[in-house]
Order: sequence, then structure tokens, then C-alpha cells
Amino acid sequence: MRAEIISIGTELLMGEIVDTNTPYLASQLSLLGIDLYFTSAVGDNADRLAGVFQRAWQRSDLILTTGGLGPTQDDITREAIAALLGEKLEVNPELKRRIEEFFARRGLEMPQSNIRQATLIPSAVAIPNPQGTAPGWWVEKEGRIIVAMPGPPGEMQFMWQNEVFPRLQKRTGAIILSRMLKTFGLSEAKVDELLSDLTSSSNPTLATYAKLDGIYLRIAAKAERPEQAREMIARREAEVRAILGDAVWGVDDETQEGVVGKLLTTKGLSLAVAESFTGGFLTNILASAPESQRYFKGGLIATTDEAKVSLGLDAGLVSGKASAEVAKAMAALARSKLGADIGIGIEGESAAEAATGMVPGTVYIAIDSEQIKIHQVQSYSGRLYQMRRRAAYYALFDLMKLLKSIS
Amino acid sequence: MRAEIISIGTELLMGEIVDTNTPYLASQLSLLGIDLYFTSAVGDNADRLAGVFQRAWQRSDLILTTGGLGPTQDDITREAIAALLGEKLEVNPELKRRIEEFFARRGLEMPQSNIRQATLIPSAVAIPNPQGTAPGWWVEKEGRIIVAMPGPPGEMQFMWQNEVFPRLQKRTGAIILSRMLKTFGLSEAKVDELLSDLTSSSNPTLATYAKLDGIYLRIAAKAERPEQAREMIARREAEVRAILGDAVWGVDDETQEGVVGKLLTTKGLSLAVAESFTGGFLTNILASAPESQRYFKGGLIATTDEAKVSLGLDAGLVSGKASAEVAKAMAALARSKLGADIGIGIEGESAAEAATGMVPGTVYIAIDSEQIKIHQVQSYSGRLYQMRRRAAYYALFDLMKLLKSIS
Repeated sequence: MRAEIISIGTELLMGEIVDTNTPYLASQLSLLGIDLYFTSAVGDNADRLAGVFQRAWQRSDLILTTGGLGPTQDDITREAIAALLGEKLEVNPELKRRIEEFFARRGLEMPQSNIRQATLIPSAVAIPNPQGTAPGWWVEKEGRIIVAMPGPPGEMQFMWQNEVFPRLQKRTGAIILSRMLKTFGLSEAKVDELLSDLTSSSNPTLATYAKLDGIYLRIAAKAERPEQAREMIARREAEVRAILGDAVWGVDDETQEGVVGKLLTTKGLSLAVAESFTGGFLTNILASAPESQRYFKGGLIATTDEAKVSLGLDAGLVSGKASAEVAKAMAALARSKLGADIGIGIEGESAAEAATGMVPGTVYIAIDSEQIKIHQVQSYSGRLYQMRRRAAYYALFDLMKLLKSIS
Repeated sequence: MRAEIISIGTELLMGEIVDTNTPYLASQLSLLGIDLYFTSAVGDNADRLAGVFQRAWQRSDLILTTGGLGPTQDDITREAIAALLGEKLEVNPELKRRIEEFFARRGLEMPQSNIRQATLIPSAVAIPNPQGTAPGWWVEKEGRIIVAMPGPPGEMQFMWQNEVFPRLQKRTGAIILSRMLKTFGLSEAKVDELLSDLTSSSNPTLATYAKLDGIYLRIAAKAERPEQAREMIARREAEVRAILGDAVWGVDDETQEGVVGKLLTTKGLSLAVAESFTGGFLTNILASAPESQRYFKGGLIATTDEAKVSLGLDAGLVSGKASAEVAKAMAALARSKLGADIGIGIEGESAAEAATGMVPGTVYIAIDSEQIKIHQVQSYSGRLYQMRRRAAYYALFDLMKLLKSIS
């Protein structure tokens, strides 16, 4: 099946709005195993839209459109499809009733212009849109399919997930399921090398993605039934985990701060942080996690030596170079000053404090608790803000390993 | 001039990469006053790319392409343009020499495959690319222009700003200059209402953009000479400033934290922060500003009442509801504990701590210094992370106003 995506709306051509629908649909099509050959964007202009539709009809089997289904005169996707197929638009009483109900639930009368959203052509069936007033269209004719969806990403994605994706999945005759494994501490090249025997497989597939908080691995399996696909994924996941071990810290929508939070809650432990090099980035990640007040006490951020001394660090210690000793003292300080069971201290230095340019740097991470005191040294090179983020995630990962090791 | 943008590369159709080049070029074309009618993306396939090029050649005067200029067999933009125009690719000795030099400066020999990047057709001139090995192409034939640029955004934008934009500006026969004014504390609707007499003007134009740190206003003027455009912008800017007053806090690439930093440095003052509601977001913004160690001492982040007491706040005070009194005590604490001239305290509460969903909330901001103690109460409704960000920018804006008022 050769697919094509058309985004419709003059606002997309002004450069003020980034079209997120197209990359979303592109990744969804690849999950379905459907080849995407073209994407395009066109304004709200009848002639130009007609040209784009004619071309798509000649070269593609599946045409997905977003936008142009609103109630105003600008919104001409319905008219363009009707003209392409030489069919006539007519008001569908059932659709009209649903749109009237949508407004009635909000205590409003349906504006007359919305009647345009209740029209269909003979080859089209309406696709429900519980998130808005514009139903989608599913059109089949001469062996080709056109799916017209609304432009607002929330409405489009809801319609796609609940209506369009399942129908297309039936056509392709296969179920594709996927699972994301999340790792930290290994480079993408290293992960590729370790998994080289597995990445050449075409089913399940294994793809890597470099993210801020580590390398992600997507396992996707195609099968006739969901349980087969799940079984294939489970087997591949076990193989990957056997190779990568502790580097795998989470799956799907888990976050490092979420995993750490769960471990702390389970063990009944609280956490506090002291940061210099990372400037509050780690504190902000932890404080932003849902319900983190249960286990996260807060952070002490000192950006100058003076401020470190004001907070209670030894003046002789901080006046020297950044060191593991300073990080250890900061971890202990965070613990005592904020009354937490575990303290993390992050201290670091970079060759230059310029915000731009690649610089080498060294970061010292210390974790302090009743039983255990550990520290780590990491050397990096990169832009300063990247190094700060990387250091914060290193600290989270170290803490996660520590928490898993204690009973 | 009717323009069209073509993005070339199979990776754009996989959904893993978002094409940022197209929206960038779209907004740049609108600055030049050139109408963009179509955008499209196509994979590295000779037949499909040929089809897209033929169509574009029929319907557009200016075709901008990104991608497909690399050294490998996948990269077929040069071949596609040559085929479209029925011209022959030949190695240009000067281009070959430049690419060899690019490698030589890095102590490397030019791989044989890079010779493809040194080819031209008779209708094309090379556009320098100091950021990479792939020169762009500027092609003129039969009254139409094709500009082929590399895909990596850094290389493309450098080439666009330094080579392509100036050449196109000469063609359109006019200079367009723009200036961004940045405001805080007014809603977009309020700004529109206050400036309604100015926004209808077609030259200079005035457009508003809602951003995290306030409403931005872009003034763009078209004229024959730069000094005329600058004069038009200056007059319009004076009118806007007369209407919006103190709400305008910066221009172009200035940031709130940068403006605050300059004011603190000029006045020789240092700053510290204590946060609860905002969880370190303000501290992180301030610590991330270039050279902020000169004036920013750090932050104390306490996310629980216990932690506030551990840091030295009065237990009776913090056990009650969030209040201006707590914010004031936090501001004073930040100042004393971190040894700063000025302290900011941010305290707040929201109806629900759920990370999703719209909730109402109230934020208390206090600023404490030798001479001045002020506090503000702000009520919002929104998602929790939006409220936190908004509260942090409110505090920065309050501090900015305070610093401007003291001598």
C-alpha cells in the first residue's frame, strides 16, 4: 500500500505553526508497515488543493489528509474530495443531529455554518469525532482510500487511534505491537555493537534512538494475533536484557525520576539534593515528577564558592578545585539541612564557562545515606547545557542502581 | 514570485525526524514578502523525486530544496535537477579543491565519494558552505530559480542567512527589516486590543506571538534602503512603547534572565532564591544564564513543610496555608543563607497536585533587599507545569521592575 499525507491550511505555509500531524502519522504508518512515499502541505485554495489531490489520486493507494474540515468558508477539504471524485455533497441527518447535540451539551445552539460539517458524499462514511464538531471522512473508491481528519492534533490523534488505525490494521491483515526499552550509560554505537546479532532481524525489528536520558530501543513485532506479537516481543526483550543487564532502567512511558520515586516510596526513604555545576536542573526534574512531595524534600543550589560556605561547607574545602570531597560534603549537607534519608551532591567543573562551544568537563557525583556512601567521577565533552543535563541524569541513574541494591 | 519548498530524504518519511527546515524557510519567505504555495517531502528515490520536481517546475517560480546533497549514492538532488533541466553534471575543479581543503584542514584525505559534491551543471552556480562539504546550488533557467541547500539545519540556516536570503532580497527589490519587542504581564487579547490601531497597517506590519515568557511583537518594515526601514521600525516601536509602557522588557534575542543579570551587574548586586511551588525552575533559569555566577548565588528549594522548617523557617508559619508571609520569610532566608543582597521567595498552592488537568492556583512572590520589601499575589488557572513556569517569569519580571526603579 503506497501512502501519502496532505496537510491542508494556509497557516502551515506562514512558518508560524509547525505541522506535528505529519511526523505523527508518518511514525504510525511505519508501525502499520505501510510505506509512505510523499507528504505535502497546501493552503486553503481550491485550485491548488485540487491539483494536489489529483496528483495524489494518480500515485497513491492511501491518502491521509489533516485540516480543512472546520465550519468556515476557508475549510474546503470536503469540497475538494467531492470535486476529485465527481460526487455531490449532501447533508446527512444523523451527522446534523450529532453536531446539534454537541452544541446542546454546552448549552449552545448550532451556528448555521456548522451544517457544512454534516455533509457527506456517497463514497464517504463519517468517522466519529467526540473531541470536536468535525467528523472525519473515510472514502473508498476504485481501490483507493482517502481518510480526511481534522487539523487540531488532539482531535486528529484521538480519531486516528480509535478509528483509523484499527481499520487500517485490519486491511494490512496484521497486528503490530511495540515496546520501548530505555537504557542509560551506554553510547548508541556501543548498544548497536552489543545488539548487532538482533538488529538485523526483520520481525521483530529493533531500532535505537538517542535521547537526553539515554539510548532507547524499540522492539516491534508483526503477527496475526496480539498474543503472538506480545510473545515475540517478550522473547526479544529477554534477550536484550540478558545482553545489556543493568543498563536497562525502564520501559515505554517510564521516566528515570519516576522509577527513582517509586523505589524511594517503596523503601520509605526521602531524598534531598545539593547542586553547583548543574544549577538546579536535577532538583527541578525531581520536583516536577507527579506526587514527588512524598519523597523529595528539595535542593540546595550554590553557584559560587561564597554561597557554598554560607550554606555551611568548609571554606578550606571549597576554595580548592572541584573534587569528589566537595561532592561528598554537599551530599551530606543536603541530607542534614533538608532532613532527608539520602543526599545527592553534584559538583563539577568545565574548561570554560562559555555557554556556547564544546568544552571538556569533569563531574563529581556523591550519594550519602546512613549505610552507604558512594561517589562517581564522569568526564565529558560537549556544550555546557548538555553536560549539565547529562550529569543530572547520571546522578539519577547512580541513585537508581543504589536503591535497587539495598533491601 | 510563487515559491515552493521540497524536503528530500527517506528519513523524513519515517516519522523519527521532524523537518524543522520547512517551517524555518516558510517564515523567512514571509519576511521577504514571497508567497509560499506548496511544501512537500519525498524520499531518496529517483523516479518519485523527478515527479515532484517536474510538478514544481510547472507551478512555481522559486523552488527551495533541502537535503540530498551528501556524498553517498542515496543523495540524488543534484542528479534530479540535472535530469529536470536536461543538463550534464561535471566536476568543477575549484569546488573539488575547496572540498579537498576542507578535509586537509582536519588532517584527512578526501574520500573518493565526495567528488560528487564538486559537480555542477551549466545553469548552476555553487553556494559556499563553510559549515560542511556540500556546496549549495543556485540554478536559474527560463525565468525560474531553484536553490538547493544541504539538509542539516545548521548548514542550511548559515547558507540561507549569508547567501540565499541576501540574493533573494535583491530580487524582490526591497529591504525588509524586523525587530521583536518582548512584553510580560498582558494577555495576547489585551495586547491586540491596545494596539488595534497599529495592527491593521500593512507597512510596517505588527504581529503578536504568545510565548512562555510573555507576548512578543514583531515589527517588520519594507523599504528601498535599510535606513528607511530602520526609521519606520523606530517610529512604530516608539508608538508601541508609549502604549504598552513598562510591559515591554526586551528586544530581539534578549531574555528576562539576561536583562535581570545585566541590571544586577550594573548595580553591583547579588541575588538568591527560595522556591517551593516552582520546584527549582527559577533557580535553574538563573543558573543557566551565561556568566550568572557573577551575580547569582543560588537557590534553596523546599518541597515539603518539614524541609522548610529544616532550612530555618518558623514551624508555626509554614504549617498554615501558603501565604504572602511565608513567601516573605523565604525571600529573607534565601538572602541570609546564601549571602546575597536580594532574595526572592516563591510560595504557592494549587487546588490539586495532579500533574495533568487544569487547576486554579495562587502564587505568592516576595522580594527582599536592604531598602525594599515587596510582594505580589497572582492567581492563575492552568496545567501545573504551566503555572510553575508562569510564576517563575512573574518573579523575574517583578525583580526587573524593582531593579529599574532603584538607582
